[in-house]
Amino acid sequence: AVATPALAETPTLNWRLASSFPKSLDTIYGAAEVFCNRVKELTEGKFNIRPFAGGEIVPGPAVLDAVKDGTVEMGHTASYYFFGKDATFAFDTAMPFGLTSRQQTAWMLHGNGMKLMREFFAEYNVVNFLGGNTGTQMGGWFRKEIKTVEDLKGLKFRVGGFAGKVMTKLGTVPQQIPGSDIYTALEKGTIDAAEWVGPYDDEKLGFYKVAKVYHYPGWWEGGAQLSFYVSKKEWEKLPKLFQHAIEVASMEAHTDMQAKYDAKNPAALGRLLQNKISLKPFPQPVMEACFKAAQETFNEEAAKNPKFKKVYDDWVAFRNNQGQWFNVAEQSFAKFNMSRALK
Amino acid sequence: AVATPALAETPTLNWRLASSFPKSLDTIYGAAEVFCNRVKELTEGKFNIRPFAGGEIVPGPAVLDAVKDGTVEMGHTASYYFFGKDATFAFDTAMPFGLTSRQQTAWMLHGNGMKLMREFFAEYNVVNFLGGNTGTQMGGWFRKEIKTVEDLKGLKFRVGGFAGKVMTKLGTVPQQIPGSDIYTALEKGTIDAAEWVGPYDDEKLGFYKVAKVYHYPGWWEGGAQLSFYVSKKEWEKLPKLFQHAIEVASMEAHTDMQAKYDAKNPAALGRLLQNKISLKPFPQPVMEACFKAAQETFNEEAAKNPKFKKVYDDWVAFRNNQGQWFNVAEQSFAKFNMSRALK
Repeated sequence: AVATPALAETPTLNWRLASSFPKSLDTIYGAAEVFCNRVKELTEGKFNIRPFAGGEIVPGPAVLDAVKDGTVEMGHTASYYFFGKDATFAFDTAMPFGLTSRQQTAWMLHGNGMKLMREFFAEYNVVNFLGGNTGTQMGGWFRKEIKTVEDLKGLKFRVGGFAGKVMTKLGTVPQQIPGSDIYTALEKGTIDAAEWVGPYDDEKLGFYKVAKVYHYPGWWEGGAQLSFYVSKKEWEKLPKLFQHAIEVASMEAHTDMQAKYDAKNPAALGRLLQNKISLKPFPQPVMEACFKAAQETFNEEAAKNPKFKKVYDDWVAFRNNQGQWFNVAEQSFAKFNMSRALK
Repeated sequence: AVATPALAETPTLNWRLASSFPKSLDTIYGAAEVFCNRVKELTEGKFNIRPFAGGEIVPGPAVLDAVKDGTVEMGHTASYYFFGKDATFAFDTAMPFGLTSRQQTAWMLHGNGMKLMREFFAEYNVVNFLGGNTGTQMGGWFRKEIKTVEDLKGLKFRVGGFAGKVMTKLGTVPQQIPGSDIYTALEKGTIDAAEWVGPYDDEKLGFYKVAKVYHYPGWWEGGAQLSFYVSKKEWEKLPKLFQHAIEVASMEAHTDMQAKYDAKNPAALGRLLQNKISLKPFPQPVMEACFKAAQETFNEEAAKNPKFKKVYDDWVAFRNNQGQWFNVAEQSFAKFNMSRALK
């Protein structure tokens, strides 16, 4: 075996990290900064990874290919953006009616999630790491309230990959629009509704001015995980210490992002509610119809895509197993406690 | 300014970490192992922190003093064990009707929690770091079902610091018994009930054989955080790189512990339920009475303890602010989703 060179003898390494996100999404983009700063500190400045916002090197949706093809050594993205290449990518972010933030992390770290996704990503020259979570997102901004399952029919809804596919079964017409164009499309009525993230991010884009119904929950992302991608080819060349720095710094950034959202969302929701918006849950029959449509979509995908099926079989067992326990202590505490203020 | 010596010139450092926990609590004790291993890796083996289980160097409840007095350089503990010295310690673990696991982390990292607790701990020669979370714990094992608020009167309940104090207002007689003695005390009826952690840890101690009612939730620890303690005196002497290693390795261990519990508790609950136990929520009037008693206890403590009041004022504002948001997307998603299995 070759001895690992000590840090002192390791030459300085400069890498570029392409984020899929704009700097204005400071919580998500910020996780890449937290990560890069920490890696630098842990290597006495010898391992410099410089983060670039979406569009600076490659457009946000091109991050997977940029890592795969060696344009950049790292990416920070949401894997479900690549749902169109293979639905299996969605397990690395969020599946409709899937896992909460904590459950997703548990599946990745102490279920088979990381192992299965590493196998899948290897084909794309990617070693994936946890890169944050948003928590349960909102259902989005609707020009008209969704009151019945019928209201989904013909709805022009700006919504991403898997959710769009599921809702097509109910007659919804998914729209692909970049974040920067949503406001105008909603204002003009080119689209009927749009989902983005949650109160903290949504507030900045001002959707509350042009679509007054704020539906919840975003059942298609109960806990949307972000991911760091490292070029597998470059990973294998790294000194051990640099690998350890990536491993541990990604875990820190992962936890820090969720904490930042959890600290910032409550006040943002409070401010949004001062704008005469209507905060409404999706009606129960709508949730049920979407759940049924999701189930059908999963089964169809599993029947034709063996890679998807392999991960799905493991994931669905983990997910179903979580229900009983989380409904006991965790949910009953949160339900009682969050509805009562201490004075 | 003195230049930071490079890792190559830094002499090897050996530290001891005293855990408050037995190795049989593999999830909690294991976090100290995860932490120590990572620190070693990040320093090319130069910073060796060796973990010791409760009792090996000092008894579990003596960890604070051991760090304060320099017997060991580090500890891993639950700060609320030191509630008897000052109720302010409880904010670093869990307050009755307090925060969930995610909220506790959010308050620490992106609220004022860490800042306030660092100020408080400085008097004890401690720099504190996040060291894991158990999630919402169970209410415990009861020989007889709690059906009314009256049933709490005279109840000999093995329960810790703050919860015990709160329940005294309702006539409960809190019992202090080490984990290893609970089984026999429950079996003999020396005590009427005992709380420990949750399904994964409780199963190992076999309480289900001698107390058949498993109540939930443990409203006194909606998200019980563990903490790493570093001697402040030793911390200030550390090379920067060793400090960074502690900072980042503690974050990893923190997240890893919660993930491990979340992955292991569901199956453990499933197994427990095969033993003819009765899984019961505390009745709503019991929850309400305990909430009222907690509120009174907090106000009494704040009136006489300025250190407590300083942290409480910040904490209670953060806590109350969380309710509205978490009741929207997060709770509605979890409630719907966790009650429905995908097939």
